[in-house]
Amino acid sequence: MLEQLKQDVLKANLELPEKKLVTYTWGNVSGIDRNSGLVAIKPSGVDYSTMKAEDIVLIDLTGRIVEGRLKPSSDAPTHIALYNAFPGIGGVCHTHSRWATAWAQAGLGIPAYGTTHADYFYGEIPCTREMSKSEIASDYEANTGSVIIEAFNNLNPEYIPGILVKNHAPFTWGKDAEEAVHNSVVLEEIAMMAIQCRFLKPDAKPMPDKLLDRHFLRKHGAGAYYGQSKNI
Amino acid sequence: MLEQLKQDVLKANLELPEKKLVTYTWGNVSGIDRNSGLVAIKPSGVDYSTMKAEDIVLIDLTGRIVEGRLKPSSDAPTHIALYNAFPGIGGVCHTHSRWATAWAQAGLGIPAYGTTHADYFYGEIPCTREMSKSEIASDYEANTGSVIIEAFNNLNPEYIPGILVKNHAPFTWGKDAEEAVHNSVVLEEIAMMAIQCRFLKPDAKPMPDKLLDRHFLRKHGAGAYYGQSKNI
Amino acid sequence: MLEQLKQDVLKANLELPEKKLVTYTWGNVSGIDRNSGLVAIKPSGVDYSTMKAEDIVLIDLTGRIVEGRLKPSSDAPTHIALYNAFPGIGGVCHTHSRWATAWAQAGLGIPAYGTTHADYFYGEIPCTREMSKSEIASDYEANTGSVIIEAFNNLNPEYIPGILVKNHAPFTWGKDAEEAVHNSVVLEEIAMMAIQCRFLKPDAKPMPDKLLDRHFLRKHGAGAYYGQSKNI
Amino acid sequence: MLEQLKQDVLKANLELPEKKLVTYTWGNVSGIDRNSGLVAIKPSGVDYSTMKAEDIVLIDLTGRIVEGRLKPSSDAPTHIALYNAFPGIGGVCHTHSRWATAWAQAGLGIPAYGTTHADYFYGEIPCTREMSKSEIASDYEANTGSVIIEAFNNLNPEYIPGILVKNHAPFTWGKDAEEAVHNSVVLEEIAMMAIQCRFLKPDAKPMPDKLLDRHFLRKHGAGAYYGQSKNI
Repeated sequence: MLEQLKQDVLKANLELPEKKLVTYTWGNVSGIDRNSGLVAIKPSGVDYSTMKAEDIVLIDLTGRIVEGRLKPSSDAPTHIALYNAFPGIGGVCHTHSRWATAWAQAGLGIPAYGTTHADYFYGEIPCTREMSKSEIASDYEANTGSVIIEAFNNLNPEYIPGILVKNHAPFTWGKDAEEAVHNSVVLEEIAMMAIQCRFLKPDAKPMPDKLLDRHFLRKHGAGAYYGQSKNI
Repeated sequence: MLEQLKQDVLKANLELPEKKLVTYTWGNVSGIDRNSGLVAIKPSGVDYSTMKAEDIVLIDLTGRIVEGRLKPSSDAPTHIALYNAFPGIGGVCHTHSRWATAWAQAGLGIPAYGTTHADYFYGEIPCTREMSKSEIASDYEANTGSVIIEAFNNLNPEYIPGILVKNHAPFTWGKDAEEAVHNSVVLEEIAMMAIQCRFLKPDAKPMPDKLLDRHFLRKHGAGAYYGQSKNI
Repeated sequence: MLEQLKQDVLKANLELPEKKLVTYTWGNVSGIDRNSGLVAIKPSGVDYSTMKAEDIVLIDLTGRIVEGRLKPSSDAPTHIALYNAFPGIGGVCHTHSRWATAWAQAGLGIPAYGTTHADYFYGEIPCTREMSKSEIASDYEANTGSVIIEAFNNLNPEYIPGILVKNHAPFTWGKDAEEAVHNSVVLEEIAMMAIQCRFLKPDAKPMPDKLLDRHFLRKHGAGAYYGQSKNI
Repeated sequence: MLEQLKQDVLKANLELPEKKLVTYTWGNVSGIDRNSGLVAIKPSGVDYSTMKAEDIVLIDLTGRIVEGRLKPSSDAPTHIALYNAFPGIGGVCHTHSRWATAWAQAGLGIPAYGTTHADYFYGEIPCTREMSKSEIASDYEANTGSVIIEAFNNLNPEYIPGILVKNHAPFTWGKDAEEAVHNSVVLEEIAMMAIQCRFLKPDAKPMPDKLLDRHFLRKHGAGAYYGQSKNI
């Protein structure tokens, strides 16, 4: 069932060690088929080097396993929460990439210091609030999704396709699994540059709004003019 | 037309991922044929792994496409502005390399702290002023060229073959596309070392002028004695 | 004798350069067979690229060589001290990995800033006290073991499988040689992230206890639910 | 003439890009045959990827070319000064490795913060004083050697096999070309760790003298017990 989706999700997961975003099994990617409402996700604790498409687990949007002999990633409830809350997204990626995780551990959002940021994220990449004891005590992974969603109360998740979970690490998303991983790669670059920028200028201001608009909208939305037009 | 130039520009572009200066498609290199006034430049948003010489776009110094079925890099107007203003250069390179971009985001020029710098850049590598709202609103990429040129009002672009664009990233240039990329590699090394130098000694002074002269002029100009003489 | 153990210890040692934890011969891994009380350990100063299983030295828990024509690692007395003091461990790893060694040189323990840490180490990773002149003067390597053991006076070495030795570098351990190396890899990642976290927020607090519990116990002990169950 | 020495010096030079100590041609290694007083050294500005043993230049201790069709490294007079002043050394290496160069640019010596340092360098790795205008104006490279030698007025170059040249970069040496490069690799690791140590603890003190003695003398001199004895 959904063989192409499982292939795509496998490929997106394998991109994580390839791009040096994960150590051991510290990361997971999923993709959703919006027609059936089924999510293909990495199995829990399985080594990237031996993972096959048949190891990818299919779950529904309540978290029930629909196909697959392995347990899904323990972070599956977070992925599901995001798919339920953000209908425009098709893939979710979670890593503990080094520089982005440092921001998460510091509990700070990443200001939009430059156009690398603006080309992908339309403003500061937020950091979630601290979770309460009861949120941690039960349904922890689902509640991780809830605090992410709460942070997007006044933000457009398609314009800011990622977040830092406080004391934890980043989650990113996109139109499919591949784009979700792409955004994790970008986030890691941005996180590194922003740390060095802040070292050089501790009171660095975010880039001017006009420049943020220009770069984000050059690549996204109706007026985009970056890249090749689709019928080439 | 200009097949050798397109080959050279392709090769220079492929050097960017090879030297780990770019993530995805974040960079572009061009070269100019001064006789015809034609510029060969990377197409916009095309993956380095599949790029071929026939994908390289030929444009004239007004930005008109002369040959090629793809759109040129969206940064083409910046390249053109530089070729028009700096008649001595033959290649331009733009990347978002990590350490150099951090300086650009901080809005700071890189002081000449040591001989690695002095071997290639004859003084501080400047950072452009902030662009105005109107400069960003229309002809943004051409205006990026203008603020670069403005910063070189009293500087020799052949002696300081690169700059940081504020809140954006570096541009470098050289006698051809290959040398432009070479200077981007050097700039990234310099940017990294200068950040660590400044961490160790926040009030670090630039190197003595005499030493700057010695190293730059050992490799450039009539008295150069580094490397092998040309008839070997 | 104990051919499988020697193979496992060889493989664990070779993982050190593979994971970029060591420069030249700066590291050593051992594993113990608890039935016989024999320890298989890397020979001293031998290059990883040519090391074979037959080069692995077997020593007993008094440090006497039982098998092998080479001298054991000069750190062998530290390994032995740990095996004697911590009966639950089966492997020990020592490296001079860059980021962890920086913490050791600073004489600081690594606070549990986030879940990457909590997934493996149940609280701050301690740093030993400074050794006295007499501890350094005689039986230095055995005394290195003693100050490690002293630091675990009120800590469970199976819950915090590693330590920083002041002005020296890290030691980690685990149920076998492979897990000891695994924990060194994790420690290096944690050490890097914690330095960047502290740069971003000099007064960063450790993660909430509840979150520390949640992540550590999700992977360890009776209630663990990460990964696949054993009979798959 | 001296074919084995040229082979050894070639191999040592090729180790520089292999260990990621150099960008482009920024580095050079030499070795001396003390019987003949001849030095084999890298040619100036030649690419590592195409260098052959026959490109290695033989010079005498006055700097005269004895064999070879290429010009020797422009830093040859520095190498010669070191060979003349330090009769116990057999190889010299110069790089612009990133972390060590940052210390040189900051004009600071690297304190002995830990045992990684102590295993190779018996105390602080010094930084030279600033060169005078006249020292820079004529015989610059020979004078670079002079300020290095001046810094070793009260130091043993065989116990501290390297230095940072202010506003420039490191030089290291050893019993032969291979060991000189080895010490450059070690220096780069030490330089990185020392920067991070100083970030974590700005007032970090050097390691206790007793520990410095212990580690240095464990590997050097009559009482050394690290590694295998020579007749194995």
